[in-house]
Amino acid sequence: MVKKYLMTPGPTPVPAAVACAQAADMISHRGREFHELFQYVSTTLREFIGTTREVYLLTGSGTSAMEAAVANVMSPGEKALVVRSGHFGNRWAEILKAYGVMVRAVDVEWGRAVNPKLVAERLAEDTAGEIRAVFVTFVDTSTGVVQNIEEIGGIVAETNALLVVDAVSGLGAMDYRMDEWNVDVTLSASQKSFMAPPGIAFISMSSKAWKVCERAKCPRYYLDLRKYRQWAEKFETPCTPAVSTLRALGKSLELMMEEGLANIYSRHEKMARATRAAVTALALRLFPLNPANVLTIIRPPDEIGADELRDHIARNYGVTLGGGQAQLKNRVVRIAHMGSVGPFDVITAISALEGALADKGFVVELGAGVAAAEEIFKET
Amino acid sequence: MVKKYLMTPGPTPVPAAVACAQAADMISHRGREFHELFQYVSTTLREFIGTTREVYLLTGSGTSAMEAAVANVMSPGEKALVVRSGHFGNRWAEILKAYGVMVRAVDVEWGRAVNPKLVAERLAEDTAGEIRAVFVTFVDTSTGVVQNIEEIGGIVAETNALLVVDAVSGLGAMDYRMDEWNVDVTLSASQKSFMAPPGIAFISMSSKAWKVCERAKCPRYYLDLRKYRQWAEKFETPCTPAVSTLRALGKSLELMMEEGLANIYSRHEKMARATRAAVTALALRLFPLNPANVLTIIRPPDEIGADELRDHIARNYGVTLGGGQAQLKNRVVRIAHMGSVGPFDVITAISALEGALADKGFVVELGAGVAAAEEIFKET
Repeated sequence: MVKKYLMTPGPTPVPAAVACAQAADMISHRGREFHELFQYVSTTLREFIGTTREVYLLTGSGTSAMEAAVANVMSPGEKALVVRSGHFGNRWAEILKAYGVMVRAVDVEWGRAVNPKLVAERLAEDTAGEIRAVFVTFVDTSTGVVQNIEEIGGIVAETNALLVVDAVSGLGAMDYRMDEWNVDVTLSASQKSFMAPPGIAFISMSSKAWKVCERAKCPRYYLDLRKYRQWAEKFETPCTPAVSTLRALGKSLELMMEEGLANIYSRHEKMARATRAAVTALALRLFPLNPANVLTIIRPPDEIGADELRDHIARNYGVTLGGGQAQLKNRVVRIAHMGSVGPFDVITAISALEGALADKGFVVELGAGVAAAEEIFKET
Repeated sequence: MVKKYLMTPGPTPVPAAVACAQAADMISHRGREFHELFQYVSTTLREFIGTTREVYLLTGSGTSAMEAAVANVMSPGEKALVVRSGHFGNRWAEILKAYGVMVRAVDVEWGRAVNPKLVAERLAEDTAGEIRAVFVTFVDTSTGVVQNIEEIGGIVAETNALLVVDAVSGLGAMDYRMDEWNVDVTLSASQKSFMAPPGIAFISMSSKAWKVCERAKCPRYYLDLRKYRQWAEKFETPCTPAVSTLRALGKSLELMMEEGLANIYSRHEKMARATRAAVTALALRLFPLNPANVLTIIRPPDEIGADELRDHIARNYGVTLGGGQAQLKNRVVRIAHMGSVGPFDVITAISALEGALADKGFVVELGAGVAAAEEIFKET
């Protein structure tokens, strides 16, 4: 047996208490027990989103919430500005196009953060105010880059456009303040930093966004947030929700509230710093220039394909790392450190990397990466 | 403590082995272990759907699969014929309207099956062949009625229209033959007769439906079945699926295949017959005239509101029964017997009903309903 370690950027490892919460007796989604669960999850999520607005719970992948955002605030033929900074920035553009929205893009080199001034310029050029919304990715998991939502929010707030943020990655592990940063729509999902299984997505909208929603003309039914708002009044969802996944998320949120937001965020910051110190000590190149605290992306030596290295690690060390997506396919290896993650997860990943590089004939000082990580961990 | 019994028509009770399957270590949705799970679930579901076509796995409520059916085979401005035989027949009409489809309805009195000849007449009137699809509900859980899909299928097959069937309720508990009955689109979900938690829906399409799908113009991204078909080639889904719910469904299907389809169907038939014999013995009125084997709907005595009776049973006996929906609100009580159900579940429901009726001052011979059920169960 090779013991297995899941270190992909979503789904992330699920603590046993969270996983087992799914096994409780099934309940009706129209009864008191469910109402309590709904209330706890939706109000606790507000803390992480940084909003006083309601949070709606969707049964679906993160992408379902991205589509809900598009369908509820856009109308066919309208214009939207998309910050295309990675695979999930492209996804914004694809969904918008599927709904007949005209996409204007701010294209950012993969691995870099967008300069918020570029967004300001594009909005300033739009003197007729035709751009109805700006779509951004908080952390694009494909590039590991975190965008400056606060600054972009300040810029968009001075226009009539809405700011829509895909926070599937990053939220729950990094400071995020929807209301303070002037974000109009924030969405995320259960399976990354919230360390619950995939299957629940969630979304919150500002009053500015709700006004647009009332007149938005994209067809929608399952993802019609007006229905979710109506049913939320009695702490229910319009359709049968993923009750057991929601219970897992409820348990995750309990554990997270026990740890406290500030502690969670600083833990992730430390994991990120330790991982980066370690890979740097191993002379591996970091991919993004503005890396988020939830994953570290490395470019392996040119002599070895990223997927070959990843496969070798999975097969021989039992550690599943993430591969590159789209234009980064076979060019990078993604080490996730989000959610249920501690120092020894980082040590495990780095140790596996050291072993694999040595196996493949690279000159590597065994333990050098681990030592660099330990140096960070011993900081108080 | 009042011990709890869930007897609502979805979610239904989840066997412990199925519930605990969710607690296994999380895995990547892009790896070999997931591929095996995907393959097992999607190929095993074919047996219950009665098709040789691929079955696609969606992360969502049953309604998400209904919407997928609409968005993938219809275009705005086209005409569709809907058999409106209950709450979920109405839902077909609502989703179609949300997508700009012109709805023609065959309205059926709630509690009755549609006369397939009415469908034939409406299609015959459509000499220009403008009706592109007929939307039917296999078992409308709101009325407990089963529709004659085989006969409707024969009628629709003689036209260019597609036959789309919502089989969320009924499939997995009753004989269903998509290919043989000429059904073009069949959809269902995990949380009823498949006795898994809610969160996974699934859908299968005929080649006739796939041809229409290629040119259908409703906007779709998350529910775009062309993407699901493409990703299914490598046993994956386009977006991160509800891995743990899928594992539960995998375990359910294992248990169901062990029992065998014929045995499952005859077990449900017996449960239905026993429940009906029991409520008849208690002089309660059955609601639908063509009842499906998955639930029994009763109309309580006029002197007591259905919801009052239901609440009394929930509070004092711990048995959660279903209430009436839409026009049947507070008029009926729904006793589900689908999925993980055996004789003693029926006995429990009937015993609770007997006790509650006596509590409320009705003249009821205690044990009379139970005896009638036992008579059925002792048949070999």
